[in-house]
Amino acid sequence: MSKKNLKLGLFGFGCVGQGLYHVLHETHGVKAEIKKICVKHHNKTRPISESFFTFNKEEILNDPEIDVVVELIDDAKAAFEIVKTALEHGKAVVTANKKMLAEHLEEIYDLQRKHGKPVLYEGSVCGSIPILRNLEEYYDNDLINSIEGIFNGSTNYILTKVFEEKKSYSDALKKAQELGFAESDPSLDVQGYDPKYKLVIAIAHTFGVFVKPEEVINIGIDRISDLDLKFARDNGYFIKLIARAFKADGKIYGFVAPQFIEAVNPLASVRNEFNAVQVQGAFAEKQLFIGKGAGSYPTGSAVLSDISALTYDYAYEYKKLLQGDNHEFSNALLVDVFVSFELGTNITIQDFAKFESGYAAQGKQYMVGQVSLSKLQQWSALEGVGIILAPNSSFVALDSASTDLVEELKSA
Amino acid sequence: MSKKNLKLGLFGFGCVGQGLYHVLHETHGVKAEIKKICVKHHNKTRPISESFFTFNKEEILNDPEIDVVVELIDDAKAAFEIVKTALEHGKAVVTANKKMLAEHLEEIYDLQRKHGKPVLYEGSVCGSIPILRNLEEYYDNDLINSIEGIFNGSTNYILTKVFEEKKSYSDALKKAQELGFAESDPSLDVQGYDPKYKLVIAIAHTFGVFVKPEEVINIGIDRISDLDLKFARDNGYFIKLIARAFKADGKIYGFVAPQFIEAVNPLASVRNEFNAVQVQGAFAEKQLFIGKGAGSYPTGSAVLSDISALTYDYAYEYKKLLQGDNHEFSNALLVDVFVSFELGTNITIQDFAKFESGYAAQGKQYMVGQVSLSKLQQWSALEGVGIILAPNSSFVALDSASTDLVEELKSA
Repeated sequence: MSKKNLKLGLFGFGCVGQGLYHVLHETHGVKAEIKKICVKHHNKTRPISESFFTFNKEEILNDPEIDVVVELIDDAKAAFEIVKTALEHGKAVVTANKKMLAEHLEEIYDLQRKHGKPVLYEGSVCGSIPILRNLEEYYDNDLINSIEGIFNGSTNYILTKVFEEKKSYSDALKKAQELGFAESDPSLDVQGYDPKYKLVIAIAHTFGVFVKPEEVINIGIDRISDLDLKFARDNGYFIKLIARAFKADGKIYGFVAPQFIEAVNPLASVRNEFNAVQVQGAFAEKQLFIGKGAGSYPTGSAVLSDISALTYDYAYEYKKLLQGDNHEFSNALLVDVFVSFELGTNITIQDFAKFESGYAAQGKQYMVGQVSLSKLQQWSALEGVGIILAPNSSFVALDSASTDLVEELKSA
Repeated sequence: MSKKNLKLGLFGFGCVGQGLYHVLHETHGVKAEIKKICVKHHNKTRPISESFFTFNKEEILNDPEIDVVVELIDDAKAAFEIVKTALEHGKAVVTANKKMLAEHLEEIYDLQRKHGKPVLYEGSVCGSIPILRNLEEYYDNDLINSIEGIFNGSTNYILTKVFEEKKSYSDALKKAQELGFAESDPSLDVQGYDPKYKLVIAIAHTFGVFVKPEEVINIGIDRISDLDLKFARDNGYFIKLIARAFKADGKIYGFVAPQFIEAVNPLASVRNEFNAVQVQGAFAEKQLFIGKGAGSYPTGSAVLSDISALTYDYAYEYKKLLQGDNHEFSNALLVDVFVSFELGTNITIQDFAKFESGYAAQGKQYMVGQVSLSKLQQWSALEGVGIILAPNSSFVALDSASTDLVEELKSA
């Protein structure tokens, strides 16, 4: 296979961009070189020669010599404009911008077909873990039933510290922020938006369905209380923020929520800033991929892998989409859940489709049973309400007349 | 990409062949159909139409309509002849025969180049885990430092039972045999030959080096005693049979040996018949893949993935080989090890490059320290000698003048 010598135009030179620069210069396997880097701030000191930099995006987008635009900026709106223009100008694109991708994936799919140029984005889902490439290439013949895992490193770091060092949630968050594992505004992470964006992208490559981020329910870890932590510890559980999607009765379900995880579950051993993705297929059965989900080198490495793939004209084929099974996305689901709240909160036994047990003491209360996802979404907006899925939650379709048990995703 | 409609000729219709047949008939993504199946035994009842079967291998090898030979027989020598002839006749080959591949990999590489037809063998290394494809495609630009893991499901099943159900080694082996996880002659598994074959194949795709199986040292789990198990339990360790290879000072080292594994190590949570592969790259850092290593469906699924890849003319590029770094394979290594033996066995403190501690009681003795791999190989042939690597063993090159610490593969 003859490889092309690619010229790259970068947008952004933050942690991933710098990681990419170094990775590209320390390996000799990839025929690609950075021609220009477009940055925003005029008065920053840059670690490499000034001649690489421009403040004018046209210098990249209008340069016919540049084959590939590597988009690594924060601003999702500006990023989408860059991707769109790059494709219109006949350039391939590599990006790791999960928010932008999740919000515009169907448009980006259409733009790729219209302009005949690929967009690759392995770095957008769980950093260094090659999950999209495997979903596209390796599992294209496998009937995948579910994909789930730990899609966010910041929250996993916080939860690891909470359990291993018996820290409170707020102390662990502070520590994560000090170490750069959590943003100064951590809400995208701790409320589950970041893993939701990744899940939306994964759903397209797993089941061939485009779903909008706002259709997917995300429940965060920011309302987890000391009572919840005590309950977990007393029962030998960890808590992990799990993103999952699965197929049942021809529909696709997907959401993000914290879950109790038994020590014997391989996800329990996924610690600190590591991510994990578990794919369950009809034939390959359970496959678990664990790796660093963020950071300049791990993400830079994923971005470089995409660039390398472009040297031999690789493009996502979106095979499941083209197989045309046309699965519908649905939130009509009952899950087994542990809910904790303060006395006086408007949560009652009648809210449960199936009530299992409850306990109240010292102004706090918890209830365990089967609740609809949409009810959980309402509760998650209430102050002081902790929501955590049962360790082996069943998932029951609400709109099937019989409310049959559609799937039981055993955790181990 | 236009896909070909492939006609397959199968050799063997055992558990993997039957798995493949079912997988192929239950999925619609792969354009391939079985035309003929060559089997050995005349008087077996087959679960599918007799018209598929032949006892004459020429009916497949000489059939110009058959594009792909799928070799799934036990006999490594006969398998190699089939692969060779198939390539000579212009057919692509899919195989999962690790022994055959490990023994003939360089010849098979040469034959592929000579005849211009690919041989794919994802199913040969850790069954359903897509490790070869990832090493070829995803890590081609990454500087990989090491690959290690649990490459054998039978021994992992036995070791899991030993620890979780406090069974003796022989009881656990018996249970594994009853369940079909271990062969009636389990020596290939428990003496570490099977994981060694897989390691040899992985080394070629990780480091671009062809090494003969007989050059690679394998120490099994069959000499692990109750004292060893007690020591492990007392220290909170598990024992896993680890295959590993790594690069240090421009040389490649690789071997198979049991190792104490701390509970916090993700490999500790890889239970029963599951396999795991951990790749450590310069940029992607640690990546762990966990999945079923054997069984009709998991291996059948890997074989089908190879067939699917052939529909778009995929071939291994052996990129690391072609990068031509020409690393030499070496066994000149010191490792940190726990050795247990009966009093009177010819093992002394002088055998250790660095002696750390020892203990003797009730006719049994153990010693802990740094020993050369070749010494361990000698000891592993002695009755009643248990050899288990320390949980965070250092690996020190013997032939570097300074016996520098070349690598310390931290386990967590």
